[in-house]
Amino acid sequence: MELNKRQTEILEIVKLDGPITGEQIAERLKLARATIRPDLAILTMAGFLDARPRVGYFYSGKKPTQSVSDGMIGMKVGDFQSIPVVVNENVSVYDAICQMFLEDVGTLFVVDKSSCLSGVLSRKDLLRTSIGTTELEKLPVHVIMTRMPNITYCKKQDTLIHAAKKMMDKQIDSLPVIVEKSKGLEVVGRITKTNITAAFLSLAEEHEL
Amino acid sequence: MELNKRQTEILEIVKLDGPITGEQIAERLKLARATIRPDLAILTMAGFLDARPRVGYFYSGKKPTQSVSDGMIGMKVGDFQSIPVVVNENVSVYDAICQMFLEDVGTLFVVDKSSCLSGVLSRKDLLRTSIGTTELEKLPVHVIMTRMPNITYCKKQDTLIHAAKKMMDKQIDSLPVIVEKSKGLEVVGRITKTNITAAFLSLAEEHEL
Repeated sequence: MELNKRQTEILEIVKLDGPITGEQIAERLKLARATIRPDLAILTMAGFLDARPRVGYFYSGKKPTQSVSDGMIGMKVGDFQSIPVVVNENVSVYDAICQMFLEDVGTLFVVDKSSCLSGVLSRKDLLRTSIGTTELEKLPVHVIMTRMPNITYCKKQDTLIHAAKKMMDKQIDSLPVIVEKSKGLEVVGRITKTNITAAFLSLAEEHEL
Repeated sequence: MELNKRQTEILEIVKLDGPITGEQIAERLKLARATIRPDLAILTMAGFLDARPRVGYFYSGKKPTQSVSDGMIGMKVGDFQSIPVVVNENVSVYDAICQMFLEDVGTLFVVDKSSCLSGVLSRKDLLRTSIGTTELEKLPVHVIMTRMPNITYCKKQDTLIHAAKKMMDKQIDSLPVIVEKSKGLEVVGRITKTNITAAFLSLAEEHEL
């Protein structure tokens, strides 16, 4: 729910000088008491102001936050993304697993000679390979990685909702955040279900839950 | 924002018979036009009603949904949890990995003889072991699992916010949902960051984003 200019002014007055009566507020705004009556009713009903008989209006402490809808649409991939961890196509599966532990990530992105996205390696891919193969040091990751065009990705300016939908639809735990270049896709970030969980909590915090 | 009884009545009238003028609504409620003026202002400002000059009020289609706060607090672990996958303490690491792929989960819960929670196995634990050990068929999971009391868990009636906070604080991807019994903790569910992502999307859907 958005407040209009007069309601915002009233809220400011009450914040600074409350408790204050409706008459006093009207006087400060050089308006009639009857004029601001609907505004006071709206501010009280919406929970921004409390009213006590013979005391006046005072500020409830509730901030005129954005609506959830606005809040969620405003959440962009770029604001929640993590740093991507990339490895070269010719790195061994063994080294990729070590890299995954060193960086403590669940997904590695694989890049080609021109540093463009060519594959994705999940913990699941690496675990599957590690129990099926003995010579992990000799097997290059490009043999087992998920390749383009089967990689689902997103862009910084996408909404988190959009990224979350993609992960759920494809049943994957993370997406590379990319920028399209003439030579291919440059990896600039990583969005995971951990980022979505952080966003979920930040929605809760915004509403002081 | 919660509507009072009169506002709910007005909303119902406009839903059924809109477009309808303020005078007509007042007549239906046997009230003066002036009495319902603040209610109409609130309903219009909050976006439930639209008003068109010389036509009257009509229903905008927006439902008086719960506030986000109420919506998020109402989300309980029990409403979003997945089915837990459990293995016995003496199962081999190799069999546990196979079970993880078969069930397509990221975490296995380990139970003792009396079917109570004794450990947790993540994909990360299994991957670490699989590259460090050759005889995965001979190594029982109880050697490598995270043990009680180092297991973070939650209950059905906990809020999802609470569960999400625990996962973020402990940097883990899932929690067992348990019931306390005299013999120990019975595992009845599994909460993951995928469940939180689903909840995030359901919030978005509720608000038609």
